[in-house]
Amino acid sequence: MTAVTVADLALLVGGRVVGDGTRPIRGLADLRAAGPDELGFVRDAKFAELAAKSRAGAIVVAEPLDIGTAQIVAAPADVAFAKIGLHFHPVPRAKQHRIHRSAVVEDGALIGEPVEIGAHCVVGERATVGAGSLLGAGVVVGADVRIGRDCTIYPRVVLYPGVVLGDRVVVHSGTVIGSDGFGYARDAAGWVKIPQIGIVQVEDDVELGANVTIDRATLGVTRIGRGTKIDNLVHVGHNCAFGEHCAVAGFSAFSGSTIFGDRVVLGGHIVSAGHLRVVDDARIGGNSVLYGDVTEAGDYLGYPLQKKARWGRTFHVLDRLPEVFAELRELKRRRDEPGE
Amino acid sequence: MTAVTVADLALLVGGRVVGDGTRPIRGLADLRAAGPDELGFVRDAKFAELAAKSRAGAIVVAEPLDIGTAQIVAAPADVAFAKIGLHFHPVPRAKQHRIHRSAVVEDGALIGEPVEIGAHCVVGERATVGAGSLLGAGVVVGADVRIGRDCTIYPRVVLYPGVVLGDRVVVHSGTVIGSDGFGYARDAAGWVKIPQIGIVQVEDDVELGANVTIDRATLGVTRIGRGTKIDNLVHVGHNCAFGEHCAVAGFSAFSGSTIFGDRVVLGGHIVSAGHLRVVDDARIGGNSVLYGDVTEAGDYLGYPLQKKARWGRTFHVLDRLPEVFAELRELKRRRDEPGE
Amino acid sequence: MTAVTVADLALLVGGRVVGDGTRPIRGLADLRAAGPDELGFVRDAKFAELAAKSRAGAIVVAEPLDIGTAQIVAAPADVAFAKIGLHFHPVPRAKQHRIHRSAVVEDGALIGEPVEIGAHCVVGERATVGAGSLLGAGVVVGADVRIGRDCTIYPRVVLYPGVVLGDRVVVHSGTVIGSDGFGYARDAAGWVKIPQIGIVQVEDDVELGANVTIDRATLGVTRIGRGTKIDNLVHVGHNCAFGEHCAVAGFSAFSGSTIFGDRVVLGGHIVSAGHLRVVDDARIGGNSVLYGDVTEAGDYLGYPLQKKARWGRTFHVLDRLPEVFAELRELKRRRDEPGE
Repeated sequence: MTAVTVADLALLVGGRVVGDGTRPIRGLADLRAAGPDELGFVRDAKFAELAAKSRAGAIVVAEPLDIGTAQIVAAPADVAFAKIGLHFHPVPRAKQHRIHRSAVVEDGALIGEPVEIGAHCVVGERATVGAGSLLGAGVVVGADVRIGRDCTIYPRVVLYPGVVLGDRVVVHSGTVIGSDGFGYARDAAGWVKIPQIGIVQVEDDVELGANVTIDRATLGVTRIGRGTKIDNLVHVGHNCAFGEHCAVAGFSAFSGSTIFGDRVVLGGHIVSAGHLRVVDDARIGGNSVLYGDVTEAGDYLGYPLQKKARWGRTFHVLDRLPEVFAELRELKRRRDEPGE
Repeated sequence: MTAVTVADLALLVGGRVVGDGTRPIRGLADLRAAGPDELGFVRDAKFAELAAKSRAGAIVVAEPLDIGTAQIVAAPADVAFAKIGLHFHPVPRAKQHRIHRSAVVEDGALIGEPVEIGAHCVVGERATVGAGSLLGAGVVVGADVRIGRDCTIYPRVVLYPGVVLGDRVVVHSGTVIGSDGFGYARDAAGWVKIPQIGIVQVEDDVELGANVTIDRATLGVTRIGRGTKIDNLVHVGHNCAFGEHCAVAGFSAFSGSTIFGDRVVLGGHIVSAGHLRVVDDARIGGNSVLYGDVTEAGDYLGYPLQKKARWGRTFHVLDRLPEVFAELRELKRRRDEPGE
Repeated sequence: MTAVTVADLALLVGGRVVGDGTRPIRGLADLRAAGPDELGFVRDAKFAELAAKSRAGAIVVAEPLDIGTAQIVAAPADVAFAKIGLHFHPVPRAKQHRIHRSAVVEDGALIGEPVEIGAHCVVGERATVGAGSLLGAGVVVGADVRIGRDCTIYPRVVLYPGVVLGDRVVVHSGTVIGSDGFGYARDAAGWVKIPQIGIVQVEDDVELGANVTIDRATLGVTRIGRGTKIDNLVHVGHNCAFGEHCAVAGFSAFSGSTIFGDRVVLGGHIVSAGHLRVVDDARIGGNSVLYGDVTEAGDYLGYPLQKKARWGRTFHVLDRLPEVFAELRELKRRRDEPGE
């Protein structure tokens, strides 16, 4: 990897150099493993000692540390470190126009230039793939799918017919977008399938993790809003909607028609009952269950879902239930004692 | 899409026409988005106002509404709407015989006619695929698998060797059927694999969602009974059995040898501890954990699993735990007060 | 399958023969279904009656039963049964060197001999595949991946670039190893991706179930230790580490930087909050949530996570919450009664 000076990297993120700005840097590393041409990162003062011992050529910090190592001072430091990281390790995109000979591109598909289409891909009839987009091996793009510009679709993703992706969308392997929502009507003879004829719309700058499933709407649209990030093994039911810039940690499931506002942050292993709304700027901690609307921004947690501070108290009692029970029994016993 | 008159559609579902039965209909739509050649749906009187404002050409209703729009009156209305929907959007099946040139069909495989086998599919030795069945791109069918007639296997499904599917089975993308059950014996040196040599049997009219996993039996059969529907990201352990016409919402996991009767309905995010039985016609709400048998039909919920009505009371207390704790403390304080 | 005598099988597992050791055995079966050339298994005396009725040619037992059937007495019996099972049904490995004509092997890939590479596989640049390893159909091996000897990679697994597998690793279908960890920094404009440039290291004798996801480290290594077994639909976050010989039942999720020691046993549906440590020989029951370190070996359970015995008492109270509440109310009522 080509080296860049510490000063150049500081410039890239609008940071200030402390120490030797001429030092060449070739990449990122953990403070413990970094070599003299690598850049480390100190989230906060807690890691100052580790930084002092590190062989890293330079360190990104929010506040300058009193050590000899060259430093790029920028706040927030994690944003600066991320941006420098993306300089060395950009998200893979198509640079040359390359359609693997084993890929199958159906009639009427519209392929921009440059586009990379990996081995054993299938691009369905009338699908479009925007310039700069990269499809890893074995990706299946259904008929009438629209993939925007500069998207990164990792191997073995499936996009069902009619799915729409914006620009710079990243989808990790094994993820399935546009499968049928779970909808049946109960007849005397059993379940009658309700056709799922809506679509899924994934807006610009969304990133989806591995083995995620996003169902198409029954009618209308299942929507993942601009800039939203979803982690691995998440199920998004039909007609759900995420607003813009949400973050959804892994191993969660959202029943049909759960509607999230903008900038909602969800911890891992959250489940929603469906047909409910969560307001902009709600932050819901991991292992929570949503049974009703969240109408006010703030921090929530638990099952039952409560304001985070309240859940702390609930959790405290849950953790003492055997003693609570014993105390109650003791009170009762004394109440019932003849001597009383 | 070819148009059909409102009267024809009413005939299809045994419904009654109110208003103009000659109006041509070309498809389904949400009431808010429907145009004059589209059919809408009103689940109940709550949506009457929405129906009155809709531009839909006709509406399926359980009870006639006092509005000018043409109506198909049929009960249950959702079944009627589903059946009409399937008229316009039938489940995709093979109509012509087409085996993609890139598909690999091994020796001794028995392929009915017509069958559609998509690009980059693999059909293993001695596997059978019944007439009318459709395999999307990249489906892997192991040796000795038997796929019945009129099945729809979406892209990138994997069927391990020996798996058996009945007729009209639908399997969504990324689903894996027949992987090894999780079975090991503990030796001094570590875990010794217990070979998983049973099969998976998926009966007629089953539908499985995306990224589902169904493990083969250790010995014998893991069975998904006729007409059962399973949603996305569900794990079915080895030797589990579902009876007929069950419905299993997404993001659930059933440990080995969980045995469900017929017509069991399971909400999302349910986990079973394994080696237990659930009787016919049990309905278990989402976010429940099963540790023991359910021996009586009815509605259940929670962790601990309780009759639904009881869980309502349990949940009420859970939601008030801080106050419960405070009251207990207050009682204790007053009990211990010297003045007492 | 070739027959082997009962005596030969006993020899294989260091067991003792009771009854007719000359009887030929061709495979394993469930006691209820076994025929006279099949071997059954009796876990404990509870199944003695079933064994007496079985038509099995021989039975593996820990203690001899007073029945006429030939018996292989070995303890632990499940280990003996597993080892005999592996004799009849060994894990599939490459015996002949066969690279399917549709497979794509990129420049500089180093393929041992014999290796089986299935249809539509892709092996990336500079990847290595050790002798004896078998890649099922549609496996995608990224650039610079290292696969050891005698590995079994089932169809449609994806290994991202740089992933390292040891020897005798088994990976089931749909599993994704090396996808990006979920890491973003929050900027005024939205989420900035933190490049995930570490790797995943899967050590010798690991087995991973179907549709598992294991994220690469941000920097450094996500590690699955030697002999560890992981079930279906498990999410392992970036920078997690499992020690040696752990067992992880299905449908679980471990947030970033969860560090497990050796021989940890985890039930199904366990979630960890991340950045925590679990000591060697901890056993954590299903449906538990880990919020902090587990510093002492032993059995744990629940949410809040407690020593197993304590959780039993907690669960007892949870199951009686409506009555607990009623009792408290009654105590309060009597306390407040004028008569007091």
